[in-house]
Amino acid sequence: MDIYDKVMDLAKRRGYLWSSFEIYGGIAGFVDYGPLGCLLKNNIINKFRNIYIVKEGFYEIESPTVTPYDVLKASGHVDNFTDPIVECKNCLESFRADHIIEENVDINTEELSLKELEEVIKKYNIRCPKCGGEFGEVKKFNLMFITKIGPGKGREGFLRPETAQGIFIQFKRLAQFFRNKLPFGVVQIGKSYRNEISPRQGVIRLREFTQAEIEYFVHPKKKEHKKFDLVKDEIVPLLPAENQIKGEGIINISLEEAVNKGIVRHQTIAYFIAQTKKFLEDIGIDKNKIRFRQHLPNEMAHYAIDCWDAEIYTERFGWIECVGIADRTDYDLKSHMAHSGEDLSVFVETEEREVEDYEINLNYKVVGKIFKKDTKLIESYLKGLSLEDKEKIVKELNEKGFIEICLKDKTFKLEKDHLNIKKVKKIIKGEKIIPHVIEPSYGIDRIFYCLLEHSYREEEDRVYLDLKPSVAPIKAYVLPLVNKEGMPEIAKEIRDMLRENNIIAEYDDSGAIGRRYLRADEIGVPFCITVDGQTLKDRTVTVRERNTRKQERVKIDELVNYLKAKISL
Amino acid sequence: MDIYDKVMDLAKRRGYLWSSFEIYGGIAGFVDYGPLGCLLKNNIINKFRNIYIVKEGFYEIESPTVTPYDVLKASGHVDNFTDPIVECKNCLESFRADHIIEENVDINTEELSLKELEEVIKKYNIRCPKCGGEFGEVKKFNLMFITKIGPGKGREGFLRPETAQGIFIQFKRLAQFFRNKLPFGVVQIGKSYRNEISPRQGVIRLREFTQAEIEYFVHPKKKEHKKFDLVKDEIVPLLPAENQIKGEGIINISLEEAVNKGIVRHQTIAYFIAQTKKFLEDIGIDKNKIRFRQHLPNEMAHYAIDCWDAEIYTERFGWIECVGIADRTDYDLKSHMAHSGEDLSVFVETEEREVEDYEINLNYKVVGKIFKKDTKLIESYLKGLSLEDKEKIVKELNEKGFIEICLKDKTFKLEKDHLNIKKVKKIIKGEKIIPHVIEPSYGIDRIFYCLLEHSYREEEDRVYLDLKPSVAPIKAYVLPLVNKEGMPEIAKEIRDMLRENNIIAEYDDSGAIGRRYLRADEIGVPFCITVDGQTLKDRTVTVRERNTRKQERVKIDELVNYLKAKISL
Repeated sequence: MDIYDKVMDLAKRRGYLWSSFEIYGGIAGFVDYGPLGCLLKNNIINKFRNIYIVKEGFYEIESPTVTPYDVLKASGHVDNFTDPIVECKNCLESFRADHIIEENVDINTEELSLKELEEVIKKYNIRCPKCGGEFGEVKKFNLMFITKIGPGKGREGFLRPETAQGIFIQFKRLAQFFRNKLPFGVVQIGKSYRNEISPRQGVIRLREFTQAEIEYFVHPKKKEHKKFDLVKDEIVPLLPAENQIKGEGIINISLEEAVNKGIVRHQTIAYFIAQTKKFLEDIGIDKNKIRFRQHLPNEMAHYAIDCWDAEIYTERFGWIECVGIADRTDYDLKSHMAHSGEDLSVFVETEEREVEDYEINLNYKVVGKIFKKDTKLIESYLKGLSLEDKEKIVKELNEKGFIEICLKDKTFKLEKDHLNIKKVKKIIKGEKIIPHVIEPSYGIDRIFYCLLEHSYREEEDRVYLDLKPSVAPIKAYVLPLVNKEGMPEIAKEIRDMLRENNIIAEYDDSGAIGRRYLRADEIGVPFCITVDGQTLKDRTVTVRERNTRKQERVKIDELVNYLKAKISL
Repeated sequence: MDIYDKVMDLAKRRGYLWSSFEIYGGIAGFVDYGPLGCLLKNNIINKFRNIYIVKEGFYEIESPTVTPYDVLKASGHVDNFTDPIVECKNCLESFRADHIIEENVDINTEELSLKELEEVIKKYNIRCPKCGGEFGEVKKFNLMFITKIGPGKGREGFLRPETAQGIFIQFKRLAQFFRNKLPFGVVQIGKSYRNEISPRQGVIRLREFTQAEIEYFVHPKKKEHKKFDLVKDEIVPLLPAENQIKGEGIINISLEEAVNKGIVRHQTIAYFIAQTKKFLEDIGIDKNKIRFRQHLPNEMAHYAIDCWDAEIYTERFGWIECVGIADRTDYDLKSHMAHSGEDLSVFVETEEREVEDYEINLNYKVVGKIFKKDTKLIESYLKGLSLEDKEKIVKELNEKGFIEICLKDKTFKLEKDHLNIKKVKKIIKGEKIIPHVIEPSYGIDRIFYCLLEHSYREEEDRVYLDLKPSVAPIKAYVLPLVNKEGMPEIAKEIRDMLRENNIIAEYDDSGAIGRRYLRADEIGVPFCITVDGQTLKDRTVTVRERNTRKQERVKIDELVNYLKAKISL
């Protein structure tokens, strides 16, 4: 048994993680959080909220998981959220083509086309790992769970592949809420879905998982961070793209130096690297098993210009991506503008200055007949143009005689005589801009598993989870030394008192006291409170600390404050 | 504008509730919680967790929303979770057949069959409300969102229609976690889905909604509640089924009397009625707008023997169901036993006694050939039988010569010579039972809306939300009286200090102080803290209370404790 098996065995036996649908045979890619798992997961999420909502001042929103086609067409997921799939001609089992290859031959499949993947499979005569059968064609498989909204033919929809899109499509309302003042941060925490072809890494690769995403909207030319000074001296373990290409390892470097040398693209990414490191260490991830790896140019998502993954080391899976911090630029807002026809820019104040501007209007005499009911769409697009955009259009019209714009999946050709363009001088006190977005995206389930693994301790006579009191599911066990002389009653009163004071405590009177201690240790209970003979005389109890096993006598009346001080550490 | 319109207008403008997918035209039955809405919703859920998890000692679990066919076939949702649907032959729009009838003629459709609904539509010549077209056949429409798990033909799945099933199918693990000690309570909070035919009541009838469900497992013969004494004198407004049939109204009655008179079936339901009332009042629902209505025999779900809805009064929709408290008996556990072949009973200790028992085993010489690979399934079924079950089987075999059992959707006929039955005497210290489950099920979105409506206040010069400090999204606004003399800096420091102490506070310096107060009032901020001339001299600020508009001077150093005491009220 490696540590993964040991941790998962404990997790299953004691109520942290369970296989989903187990009595019906189970399905890969799903997991249940049991009673202790759910408490621990909620504690992790509460820490996240505490850092980002309460302290940092971001706001959370919650949008539906069911998402109509239009949104995910615009975001690029309908076209790009795919994996290459290959089916065994004999047993009809499906596999990820790139995984099948990498498991058999030493080839990097990252940049291979579907055709090329197929050729590699043929060339090396790679066979089905289940039955030895021959593979068919390599195809694209879209990883979104598909569904239908409403009756009859209904409306095509998907389960969202990320929580982020729910934020982007509400940008207009959000900008209004924040009174158009950049930067601002918006959080969404919830389920996302990825219909994996054949997930085989347990809780590491789930088809339904919990994300906590931040979309931090900034002025495209202002990616400095006003609190960067607070973190600039932080030394972080970075694995830049360049080092990976050269075969070099991690560098430990201050964030200030990393930004100055251009290793990290700007202060805002650096700030979130610092915050992410702090969060992971705060909940109890081993700080020696965290690194930040930059995406290589060819692995970056289609929307990103820079991306750093917080990777956490695990024994079985090695370094795994748990948080991605990406600069998504204005990719998403621009796509949704083009597809929806809504203006998703904000007007930001600048110093007063005179500029040459253009008024671009449709020449209604001509265009009405041509574009018919799309006229309004084009009109609203023209209204949303920034000065920069307008300059580009005027230039292009002069050069080519026409421009092409793509709105709601249609392309419109606008010729010179379709437009009335007037050059004007304007005093402006601001400008329209489309913000860029920096996105720290946390995978809560992976962080959860890593935390369990990093907390797992074996000693000669026991196994225990070294969970911090602030995240441990159950804070205290209350134990009568023996089941007589009124000790059980006092112990139950103490449990009730702790719960009245919002400290989750359990009562246990079954078996020898030593065994009860070990049972509490195994699930990570930080404190065991024992009611004994002396309690009856002076109303004190012993408090045993899990890791050291040291015991201290504490007055019952002081117990709540004693524990609260230790729990909030 | 009625109050619904007013509340929704405020909710939209100020960031409580937004239409989902608005820039793509929107879709009925979905809603976004904006920045303030999400905080308020989370505060409501935290109160729920505080009552039921922290104080009451229940445990929460979290299972997937994507659910395979088998689970929902067993639960009855594949067959019974349907609405009657009818399509307009002309415009092809779909409607709920029962709603269409009730909107046109005064007929109670509750017990009508599909055929009968169709006849009513024909008889009264009810036409499409959109185009006046003729309606076609009335059909059954299953309300679950359908999806597919995995590639290729995949595995049929649905989005869960309730969180409860995730608990039932983990019953084995849960019983082990609770060491087989009844009663125990398990909570699940999360999204559930109902693919409504044509939802038209805004946030009241959602296709994707948040449930908080408790499954409280009890011994079938022990439905008393050990804490009933704490609530028995509580006077509650009940609308029993009998009163509804007789056309009589609400009675205000103590829970003890209600149980003694047999109005409420047992103490456990009564206890949850009390807890639900307390919860709703705690978050701020108007206590004069809560009632508990018993389901009529013909409206009860297929699994329930008693059900009470907590209904909350709203101006536009009247009394709406926000919480259902049902005795689901052993319906679900038994269904999952039959469909999965797993033993979902628990062994509970009783006093030692001698009983006549039966050993019932398969006669393998005969049955192997007959049942083939189903033999194991039948074997595990026989192993799970309680003494009561065995007595029934023996009796039936003696009378009819065979029994029929239904497992995993197949029916098996067991004849006398298929079984070896031995009568034995046994000393037993316990028995196998299948627990009953009492289910309080909270609809968080409806409760959320009712809370907004009940908090909405109009005065001559302002509109405000009378939200309790403990649930209000933002606890304090910090305002410099004027934007000079260092007041903005002090105000920002105070905001940061409050946030450091986990009090969500905002800074606002835009506009006259009076307007800023009113803006804070409108979103329900309970306290406005103003930094003024005197602050510069003695480090005191004014704290203005939202409802009374009264102001008090408080030292900055004492502000955190001052507010914390008021917020936790």
